[in-house]
Amino acid sequence: MKAILIVGDGMADRPLAELNSKTPLEAATKPSLNLLAEKGVCGIMDVIAPGIPPGSDVAHLALLGYDAEKVYSGRGAFEAIGFGVEVLPNDVAFRCNFATVDSKLKVIDRRAGRIATIDAARLAEEFKEVTLQGHEDVQIIFQNTIQHRAILLLRGVHLSTMVSGSDPYKVGKKVLEVRPLDGAAEAEKTAQILNELTYYFHEVLKSHPLNIEREMAGLLPANIVLCRGAGKLPDLAPLPLQYGITAVAISAMPLVKGVCKAAGMKLINVSGATGTYDTNVLAKANAAIKALRSYDFVFVHVKAPDIASHDGRVDEKVRMIEKIDQLVEYITRNVDLSKTYIAVTADHTTSSYTKEHEGDPVPVVIYGPEVRTDDIEEFTERSCARGGLGRIRGKDLLPILMNLLGKTKKFGA
Amino acid sequence: MKAILIVGDGMADRPLAELNSKTPLEAATKPSLNLLAEKGVCGIMDVIAPGIPPGSDVAHLALLGYDAEKVYSGRGAFEAIGFGVEVLPNDVAFRCNFATVDSKLKVIDRRAGRIATIDAARLAEEFKEVTLQGHEDVQIIFQNTIQHRAILLLRGVHLSTMVSGSDPYKVGKKVLEVRPLDGAAEAEKTAQILNELTYYFHEVLKSHPLNIEREMAGLLPANIVLCRGAGKLPDLAPLPLQYGITAVAISAMPLVKGVCKAAGMKLINVSGATGTYDTNVLAKANAAIKALRSYDFVFVHVKAPDIASHDGRVDEKVRMIEKIDQLVEYITRNVDLSKTYIAVTADHTTSSYTKEHEGDPVPVVIYGPEVRTDDIEEFTERSCARGGLGRIRGKDLLPILMNLLGKTKKFGA
Repeated sequence: MKAILIVGDGMADRPLAELNSKTPLEAATKPSLNLLAEKGVCGIMDVIAPGIPPGSDVAHLALLGYDAEKVYSGRGAFEAIGFGVEVLPNDVAFRCNFATVDSKLKVIDRRAGRIATIDAARLAEEFKEVTLQGHEDVQIIFQNTIQHRAILLLRGVHLSTMVSGSDPYKVGKKVLEVRPLDGAAEAEKTAQILNELTYYFHEVLKSHPLNIEREMAGLLPANIVLCRGAGKLPDLAPLPLQYGITAVAISAMPLVKGVCKAAGMKLINVSGATGTYDTNVLAKANAAIKALRSYDFVFVHVKAPDIASHDGRVDEKVRMIEKIDQLVEYITRNVDLSKTYIAVTADHTTSSYTKEHEGDPVPVVIYGPEVRTDDIEEFTERSCARGGLGRIRGKDLLPILMNLLGKTKKFGA
Repeated sequence: MKAILIVGDGMADRPLAELNSKTPLEAATKPSLNLLAEKGVCGIMDVIAPGIPPGSDVAHLALLGYDAEKVYSGRGAFEAIGFGVEVLPNDVAFRCNFATVDSKLKVIDRRAGRIATIDAARLAEEFKEVTLQGHEDVQIIFQNTIQHRAILLLRGVHLSTMVSGSDPYKVGKKVLEVRPLDGAAEAEKTAQILNELTYYFHEVLKSHPLNIEREMAGLLPANIVLCRGAGKLPDLAPLPLQYGITAVAISAMPLVKGVCKAAGMKLINVSGATGTYDTNVLAKANAAIKALRSYDFVFVHVKAPDIASHDGRVDEKVRMIEKIDQLVEYITRNVDLSKTYIAVTADHTTSSYTKEHEGDPVPVVIYGPEVRTDDIEEFTERSCARGGLGRIRGKDLLPILMNLLGKTKKFGA
């Protein structure tokens, strides 16, 4: 027995006025998702807890069966390992942006005009071997990723994740002084390093030849790096060890890849899986089908519905759900349905109205040989609420799937 | 966005023979509650946990989103602050009754013939400045409240809530010796003080001129004070701070007022809201409508259904539910429904047959602009069990409402 879990990021929504009080899932044409609902067992799921809007990192920890409230230790490290940067257990990791500031350090653009990856890489070269005076014991690892995005790792002893960030999040605001968030000397030291580093980034970048070229070309200079989301790698019991399975993840998003990797899963990169509207879902479906031949558990993540909600583009959200339906159709047509469980859910509700993650539950369906089917015929937020799974928690889904695979261990004798 | 939560105390019940196996909610004529169910989302709720009958104090802690199992520290302190008596963080508070005992300290009436408040106040005058020999470090604060009821606070160091009470709860039984409930010296000391105080109450009261007058008038003398329910004020994160909201409570019951106050809510007193059958629900509804203009969250508590159950008066319970329906009607007619969430539930099931709080779940409905409606058309224990909310816990309701108001914080990034 094998299982595939397909997650439509932010796919759940609330009834929307522009859809005649339907949700995008209710408005979308999605025969394959509905078929799973009809032939499977449905439910709704509080990914973390009722009413609590989950971030993408804790949501995926929960979907992989972890108690996020216990194990979560910040976003930075997931993003780093998701991008392929090695993170050691005590490294403090930050998510960073190349940004544009004025001479008074007020933010002009948090993304430096969405600087091209090739330019960012050239700038990042400058920070390959930085050592801060007085902090020679701390190794500084800086890596640009996609466009303006980058990762910073501080490696050494006496460091802490209990520090604020330098990113003020808003145009017109001054770069923030990083502050310790507890009274420990470690937080004090980490904040000091980050403040000195911010100054150093600005000093090096403001007169960098590339930035002068950019300004001459009418582009915004990437004259600072802003940091946020201090995190360490949590100590997660790997899924293969917990359940005696082989497990693999397919996602275009470094954060999700990072969580999956931290859970001991392999990663498959799919060309054409972009993490945005134009993502090639059939390429993903193909990769998933292939992966099911060698792995017991395949996790497939599609980012686009969430982006549509954050952009407030209801039509795109409906379209992205229809693309996920195509992915589901392709998979159901090409796997051995007598030996495969297919589950579909979302990692959280994203309201296309508020454009934010919300704490409303998400629908979930499990299709497969031995599920106790119910009479739900549509995969939507409202219909699944009457389903046979009832209302479960995010961290319960993976044990439910593993139980169907015969992989959960008996508790007691 | 605003929210109003209406709680019918003990409103849920079990099917009753005298109602042809209907519950009072099923038997009552309640078009407005049914309309909320029809246009909103319904569910059932274990206020604490399945099968656990909640006391009114822990029930309201849960309804305000607290984990009662973690924060509860006895009833006494809530009742005290609900009545307006200042309680400091380490005070040990007790609920007390003026009572009548015979010369052997056997209880004749636990309520001293439901002594009038004015008489109780005169007796309480005697205990304004009590100091016990050998315990001069402990300040004794005694305050009568309504009729036979009173509050006792012990203020000082080395005191404990881990003591039993002196109230034997039954006529014919002897006043109990207070005992320490753990091995700590603090409990030993507190029990000793309470025993000495019980003796002192009796000594002062048995020869009090008022009691001699009462006996001549054929009334029972209030010749002792019985104490129970040792409690401290729990350290609750205030709702306004947790969610960035303004919050207010409307209740006639000191205990409920106390819980709301401990949660950082303002209190509104409504004249005509008596906490019994004759309570003026329209006065409450009016106060709630007014409060919605200045507060984000309004909590309205109606005590009467619970009293009817405790009295075993099924007809009165049905009538009280119909009064709550009028309150709901008045509110729905007079608030801006495009900007207001209206939730209705009970704090526990009270069986009109056993006349006790029971551990059965309670129905809950949430009506408002962005809820995911279901196909439930009646607000009853049984119909709500098929609703879109599924089966939730009491502590989940407030986060669900705050999520709809956009006030819950995202967990993770």
